[in-house]
Amino acid sequence: MRMYDIIEHKRDGHELTPEELNYFVSRYVDGTIPEYQASALAMAIFLKGMTARETGWLTWEMACSGEMMDLSSLPGIKVDKHSTGGVGDKTTLAVVPIVASCGIPVAKMSGRGLGHTGGTLDKLESIPGMSVSIDRERFLQIVREVGCAVVGQTGNLVPADKKLYALRDVTATVDSIPLIASSIMSKKIAAGCDAIVLDVKCGSGAFMKTADQATKLAEAMVAIGEEVGRTTVALITDMDRPLGNKVGNSLEVMEACQVLQGTAPADISDTCLELAANMLQLAGRGSLAECRELARAQVASGAAFERLCRMVEAQGGDSRVLRDFSRFPQAPCKREVRAPRDGFVFSMQTEQVGIASAALGAGRETIDATIDYTAGIDLARKTGDPVHKGDVLATLYSSNKDRLDDGEHLLLEAYDIQDEQPLPVPHFFARVTAAGVEPLA
Amino acid sequence: MRMYDIIEHKRDGHELTPEELNYFVSRYVDGTIPEYQASALAMAIFLKGMTARETGWLTWEMACSGEMMDLSSLPGIKVDKHSTGGVGDKTTLAVVPIVASCGIPVAKMSGRGLGHTGGTLDKLESIPGMSVSIDRERFLQIVREVGCAVVGQTGNLVPADKKLYALRDVTATVDSIPLIASSIMSKKIAAGCDAIVLDVKCGSGAFMKTADQATKLAEAMVAIGEEVGRTTVALITDMDRPLGNKVGNSLEVMEACQVLQGTAPADISDTCLELAANMLQLAGRGSLAECRELARAQVASGAAFERLCRMVEAQGGDSRVLRDFSRFPQAPCKREVRAPRDGFVFSMQTEQVGIASAALGAGRETIDATIDYTAGIDLARKTGDPVHKGDVLATLYSSNKDRLDDGEHLLLEAYDIQDEQPLPVPHFFARVTAAGVEPLA
Repeated sequence: MRMYDIIEHKRDGHELTPEELNYFVSRYVDGTIPEYQASALAMAIFLKGMTARETGWLTWEMACSGEMMDLSSLPGIKVDKHSTGGVGDKTTLAVVPIVASCGIPVAKMSGRGLGHTGGTLDKLESIPGMSVSIDRERFLQIVREVGCAVVGQTGNLVPADKKLYALRDVTATVDSIPLIASSIMSKKIAAGCDAIVLDVKCGSGAFMKTADQATKLAEAMVAIGEEVGRTTVALITDMDRPLGNKVGNSLEVMEACQVLQGTAPADISDTCLELAANMLQLAGRGSLAECRELARAQVASGAAFERLCRMVEAQGGDSRVLRDFSRFPQAPCKREVRAPRDGFVFSMQTEQVGIASAALGAGRETIDATIDYTAGIDLARKTGDPVHKGDVLATLYSSNKDRLDDGEHLLLEAYDIQDEQPLPVPHFFARVTAAGVEPLA
Repeated sequence: MRMYDIIEHKRDGHELTPEELNYFVSRYVDGTIPEYQASALAMAIFLKGMTARETGWLTWEMACSGEMMDLSSLPGIKVDKHSTGGVGDKTTLAVVPIVASCGIPVAKMSGRGLGHTGGTLDKLESIPGMSVSIDRERFLQIVREVGCAVVGQTGNLVPADKKLYALRDVTATVDSIPLIASSIMSKKIAAGCDAIVLDVKCGSGAFMKTADQATKLAEAMVAIGEEVGRTTVALITDMDRPLGNKVGNSLEVMEACQVLQGTAPADISDTCLELAANMLQLAGRGSLAECRELARAQVASGAAFERLCRMVEAQGGDSRVLRDFSRFPQAPCKREVRAPRDGFVFSMQTEQVGIASAALGAGRETIDATIDYTAGIDLARKTGDPVHKGDVLATLYSSNKDRLDDGEHLLLEAYDIQDEQPLPVPHFFARVTAAGVEPLA
């Protein structure tokens, strides 16, 4: 077998075989296949596509390219959750304890933020004392004792994805559904789960700008799940507005607590409950309707919130900040951003909100930059809301006074205020399973 | 400007601008742009194509990527000639002296053979004493004194093509008409000519297997010529049979002499005369009909043959071998290959004839291998000829007796002898100019 022939087959639109994909992935990871051949193949895949089963085979080979987590010491069906990312997306912080509080163990590995989206690990680290760098043994021990843990990646998982993603990033081959889907799913599979719930976001703050695009990506990932024996369900959810009202690290931890305390805005609460319900259903806890009831009950009883506090303590964090937000380190500088005119918030450039939050110090522009955990934005008005000139649209927080001007400027650009009220947009668009696409809007 | 954006534009099917192509070519040659970005672009070009003018812009940037020959010290319009290569193609050896004998200077740079096709330089070096490694000053001096010279490449011409071709060769992006056309034409332009005659071959011994494919490539190259101000004419000629009867280095020199002595087979003679006539026409020596007459007259008078002898002498060669072939070093081993049955030569695997000749020692399998100049094949029967069992199909020559078995085996495989006589195939299919395609068949 030769890499040349593999490139040629894909270039000519043929389906690559499992043997060819194994040859490519294994020899690319060990350095035998040079980057210039891999990039030619990536471009051929970009332009010629991949069949559903071919994408599944690629995913499996990538998942097997490094270490794989073994969660067999945990009881029952292990369900993982993944979000394609957005602004204000703190769902993991609420969903994991809801599911764990129902007796379903959740051993979750998360990532850091880069650019306009925040990372779950950064948010958790805004809790004083909280550690997310935990070795594998201790990680599993916490899950066994507390029911859940959220940590950074441990071990050399999916090196093929790391290498291929870095190459795609500089060769204009990122935006390909088979390649995006196999990248995401290979990491979930290597993380050791039995089933997967995906939150595929669409809109101005998401990678996929339309519900149609998001649905196509979701279908590709659900098909991969079928191919590799990991039942996968995807929700297509709205990211045309920030999710919830709070954007920034400690601000988002507070809003996740509010979800578990029943005091958060409907969009973030509903999204967390629906994701949790789907995870519970995949874990075998009954029908989706029953699982929705179960999730609500765990929030209402306070069990889910208590589970979050226990997890934070197990990972060395000070859970008192979760019960009393005034114990969080507070941003020394803040500014209220006011509406420049009367009207309605007609739309929001959601990515721009994320950029504004990063400019305040909440994000990092390079992988080595440090984060201002107190920085961020508390939105008082979102899409659809009426405003009068001078009303507070949002409050900005930062440790650095000089950043407030930038943040205000960027945030005002994100708001489009018009005379007309926009049509309401649902929080959920569809649920995608192996059985097909079920509209939810 | 960023290479990423250039890849993305081509990936999305846009026409690249002259500025983008300049950016790519100049920074690829100087090593700023890595191979993996160039290969992604090459695959995008392969799959999305290029417009005619875009191909012209790319060609121009490649031509300008290194040194360019300056032929301005030679009088008149300088016309170059290029063949896409085949088996038994010794046209340069005859065409150059025909044109030069009409007072049109020909300063020709040629290449060596690799694989199943021979190289003009190797053929010339089969003449005792002949040198093709001549510096630029002496090269131009010979052309001024004798009217023509054929040498190896001098100077660092078209480094972009060298680098890009090597990359395409390992990334399955060779077989793309804009990339093939720009590769060929950039070298011709850098070689300093004012106009170009192309011999685009089609059939079982050529890169392009059909006249349609060859015509498409010819059209692309003629369009490049228009774009860069080098009038270009292409002949689509047959390579479904070897050209002429002789394949091998000194054997082909002998047959080129026979063309100039009026004793060669019609296919090779007609091809040489037609190529020479088209060069003469581009050089301004009258209508094509007048130029055909002129070319024939130079052969009939012996002027063209004398010109070849003078050129060989000027390059240090012993021209006596051209007048008396028995003075050529002779192959110590030969074998007659005989027809295994009665019938007609229905078709020939022409590439296989080239492989057989190389196996006898006439070619090189690697760039460093040495050549047996005496080795080769003299064909007694070609496509369309009747044969009786036991008739001589061809005579094989080699310095190495052990190679005769291989050569015979390979050559017999190249012959398809059937009861039925095939339909005659023309030597020429079409003539392609900026005005369009003129069928010649």
